[in-house]
Amino acid sequence: MDANDTAKKRIVALLHGPDRAGIVARVSGWIYARGGNILHADQHRDKQQHIFFQRIEWIPAGDENEEMRLFRELAEGELGMEATIRLSSYRPKIVLMVSQFEHCFYDILMRCGMGELQCDIACVISNHEKLRSISETFGIKYHYLPISKDTKSQVEAEEKRIIKECGAELVVMARYMQILSADFIDTVGCPVINIHHSFLPAFAGAKPYHQAYERGVKIIGATAHYATADLDEGPIIAQDVVRITHRDSVDDLIRKGRELERIVLASAVRCHLETRILAYRNKTVVFD
Amino acid sequence: MDANDTAKKRIVALLHGPDRAGIVARVSGWIYARGGNILHADQHRDKQQHIFFQRIEWIPAGDENEEMRLFRELAEGELGMEATIRLSSYRPKIVLMVSQFEHCFYDILMRCGMGELQCDIACVISNHEKLRSISETFGIKYHYLPISKDTKSQVEAEEKRIIKECGAELVVMARYMQILSADFIDTVGCPVINIHHSFLPAFAGAKPYHQAYERGVKIIGATAHYATADLDEGPIIAQDVVRITHRDSVDDLIRKGRELERIVLASAVRCHLETRILAYRNKTVVFD
Amino acid sequence: MDANDTAKKRIVALLHGPDRAGIVARVSGWIYARGGNILHADQHRDKQQHIFFQRIEWIPAGDENEEMRLFRELAEGELGMEATIRLSSYRPKIVLMVSQFEHCFYDILMRCGMGELQCDIACVISNHEKLRSISETFGIKYHYLPISKDTKSQVEAEEKRIIKECGAELVVMARYMQILSADFIDTVGCPVINIHHSFLPAFAGAKPYHQAYERGVKIIGATAHYATADLDEGPIIAQDVVRITHRDSVDDLIRKGRELERIVLASAVRCHLETRILAYRNKTVVFD
Amino acid sequence: MDANDTAKKRIVALLHGPDRAGIVARVSGWIYARGGNILHADQHRDKQQHIFFQRIEWIPAGDENEEMRLFRELAEGELGMEATIRLSSYRPKIVLMVSQFEHCFYDILMRCGMGELQCDIACVISNHEKLRSISETFGIKYHYLPISKDTKSQVEAEEKRIIKECGAELVVMARYMQILSADFIDTVGCPVINIHHSFLPAFAGAKPYHQAYERGVKIIGATAHYATADLDEGPIIAQDVVRITHRDSVDDLIRKGRELERIVLASAVRCHLETRILAYRNKTVVFD
Repeated sequence: MDANDTAKKRIVALLHGPDRAGIVARVSGWIYARGGNILHADQHRDKQQHIFFQRIEWIPAGDENEEMRLFRELAEGELGMEATIRLSSYRPKIVLMVSQFEHCFYDILMRCGMGELQCDIACVISNHEKLRSISETFGIKYHYLPISKDTKSQVEAEEKRIIKECGAELVVMARYMQILSADFIDTVGCPVINIHHSFLPAFAGAKPYHQAYERGVKIIGATAHYATADLDEGPIIAQDVVRITHRDSVDDLIRKGRELERIVLASAVRCHLETRILAYRNKTVVFD
Repeated sequence: MDANDTAKKRIVALLHGPDRAGIVARVSGWIYARGGNILHADQHRDKQQHIFFQRIEWIPAGDENEEMRLFRELAEGELGMEATIRLSSYRPKIVLMVSQFEHCFYDILMRCGMGELQCDIACVISNHEKLRSISETFGIKYHYLPISKDTKSQVEAEEKRIIKECGAELVVMARYMQILSADFIDTVGCPVINIHHSFLPAFAGAKPYHQAYERGVKIIGATAHYATADLDEGPIIAQDVVRITHRDSVDDLIRKGRELERIVLASAVRCHLETRILAYRNKTVVFD
Repeated sequence: MDANDTAKKRIVALLHGPDRAGIVARVSGWIYARGGNILHADQHRDKQQHIFFQRIEWIPAGDENEEMRLFRELAEGELGMEATIRLSSYRPKIVLMVSQFEHCFYDILMRCGMGELQCDIACVISNHEKLRSISETFGIKYHYLPISKDTKSQVEAEEKRIIKECGAELVVMARYMQILSADFIDTVGCPVINIHHSFLPAFAGAKPYHQAYERGVKIIGATAHYATADLDEGPIIAQDVVRITHRDSVDDLIRKGRELERIVLASAVRCHLETRILAYRNKTVVFD
Repeated sequence: MDANDTAKKRIVALLHGPDRAGIVARVSGWIYARGGNILHADQHRDKQQHIFFQRIEWIPAGDENEEMRLFRELAEGELGMEATIRLSSYRPKIVLMVSQFEHCFYDILMRCGMGELQCDIACVISNHEKLRSISETFGIKYHYLPISKDTKSQVEAEEKRIIKECGAELVVMARYMQILSADFIDTVGCPVINIHHSFLPAFAGAKPYHQAYERGVKIIGATAHYATADLDEGPIIAQDVVRITHRDSVDDLIRKGRELERIVLASAVRCHLETRILAYRNKTVVFD
């Protein structure tokens, strides 16, 4: 876009709801009539479910907060859609949950540090002490919360308290090797993105690289998804794969997989932060 | 889409022209106001050149020919756009030009035979006799037009005559190993799609696999593009690549490249036939 | 290799058996001592199972049949290996089994016709009449054997008779939409390669593209494997994948998947014909 | 490999030289006769140039230093090969050269920190101050050496002095945006790996993403290569690519390219550190 456009306030809206004729015309006509300048507009229809999806980004002529308020009336009222409406300068706080594998953790840290991800890391929660020092080097508060079968519900309660208290709008499980309870997911109050180290739905569950090695597949993958009560069954956001051969040991799979995990998790988090993802019926629409 | 929608006449329009505010609203509003049902709409803006591009597909309420006429008035008149407007049942004739390498030729033949490509092969033009028998097995007329430096302009004139006479709307060079003159390209009267066996702009010109082997690249590619007066310089439609290693001889590169050439050429031809490609300023917008 | 080498008889051997020190030295030393010229040698060790694998290709100094006989003595006798030993000119007969989807069938036909696959198609077996005419156009005998629950064992017996009678050394299921019985697989007397239209082990069983659509994956795949008594569970030979998005309908998945199926099946068949595959413990070693 | 094998000293040798019969037999026979246990052996022949290449890794029965000395006599003396012979525990010092783009720099830092790359970063050399603080956070000495046309030869002399003084065996240009002189390359005394942000040989020189955008390619890439006197012309070690569309602005290309640059540079450095790369005649053999 023009340098001029970059400087101006932009509004991003994600809509979805029952499909019907004329929605595109109504939305674009409304913005145009109020002097707005549409920068991007992308829509999708699920023709089996008759659901309409749209992501639209524009520069309003008037005050952006007033425009957002009025647009919400249009979207939710007249059009009967669910709407997420944000300024493009949206920069939420996130919480990172990690265990001992550090590659995804480092990667998110690094990308935040370089400005690749538009968010602030409010704190780190871990069931190990291992990554405290690197966290603190980057000036990020580190909560060590070891967890056992007996303490699980208590620790999860503490985790929720921390997440809510710091105002996080997203939790990123950067290889956090504990299964979150259905109750945690339901009540944490914000989306949770998880990275699974296989090409889901293949090799769900534990030790996917070992499973892949045993089965003798020729390609392995990684999957970022929103965590739901059903382990490894949430809506898939991003996936990537890499070729392997009989020469690759389990250790090689783990090494090659680390690259995938980093890229796939970062890509999913970036799309989420840029308000590009609509999750529905256990699937996602990811506007690019 | 619904079974109902499939049966109905659909109109596809490709527009491009000077960008300005309100085009999306005007186009979608126009169709909606006339009772049309928009199935797909996708737009793009070249923000450096201030050009607007759109592909839109809809089921008109009224007579489709009348709607196409009126939409052209809107697009070309009021909006000042260049417009390609077709029924989705568009099924043009094409001419295949080939030499001795048969893989792309066979591939296009096979895809037409299976209905993957919505077109009819009007005839084959070749500077060799080699593929006559397979052409005729498939019931396709075969023109053998050998070519030499001295006869080039004369043979090209004959080729143009054949292409025009059969009413072809697209020429596909399926590894036709002759350079078409600038005059031929300018006057043949329809687009020409070529497949180049490298990842352009790398290894333009002759023997790209040998060039790639010499340079020691780790990935090779293929490129489908519209032919222009400048050899290997036309707007790129599709590209794909495959990994190679030091183990691969030039023959291996040729073998691996054949797969790419087939897929890339077929993909470019399909996008063209489905009215998905807008070429401008030596680039393409390919709506997917 | 040199033009000279191409003209000479070459021997290809695949060995596997219990790993122990000195095998590489013994094999290469044996060939060298007898004046052979090793063109390729590649080995692999399964370090968990302590199995040694080797593919070795050489030009013998003496009579190739005598060398093959003596090498077998070395491999099976002294080294205690299982051995497959062939001339590089090996060109077996194969049988194609098909139903109604023609893309893989056409593809194998085409590649055989162009010399990409070093084999002869002895005949086609199908449970439909649909592809008779194209088979016969290519001069290939077509056996129409419709199959029902009641006639299954009887039809399979007839299929086996045909396969044995024509001397086929490989059966290729080019989207043959019937489940072969465990008994058929056990007694057909030659390997059977199948193409499954998903990235196994994801979406085994029926309608994998529909399953993939439902699950909302972002990548789909195809898998070629040796058929075993356990449906979709045999040793995987080759896999490939392609990206999809929310825009892709089930029909788009089917179309994109067709490309994969063609490439993956052809690649598996080519590796098999070139004596590059060792199957063991439900996995494969594919020497490239 | 077995846990036992991991603990033992291993020797890795890279050989290349004039091809002749019996080399594989001689090398493997020599190791076997001395009680060595070969873990990996991979060879390659350039059949056009008649050059033999081998990478072999084994556990010697006796003292590893004595075995290395004797093996060098065999390789260089009897076989007339050039030989690189190292313990698998080889862990060299490297120097990172950077300018202002930090993604490759951070990435190498992070991988060293996690043990993915078996080396120590002796120091950082930069023509900007920008990355001093992050370097020093990681405890790495930072040399700020601004450079101008007038001071170039003087600064390069200082750079060479630093590189030699710290005993570095590899220089990694992690997006160092200065052209090193031919003299520097010739006299720095160790290999230099550079990352170029295009799919070489396409878009050599400055601003490759802008060039790629202008040309309208559908795929972009990155290339890691050994730096030579000819800019962007050195032996290619690793390449990777990613798809782009008309939707991608130059900024998107830069963002997508960053991922490639990180992965490709890290992969090249890893292969170098693991003694997997043989460079010859401006190409590389990379044993995997």
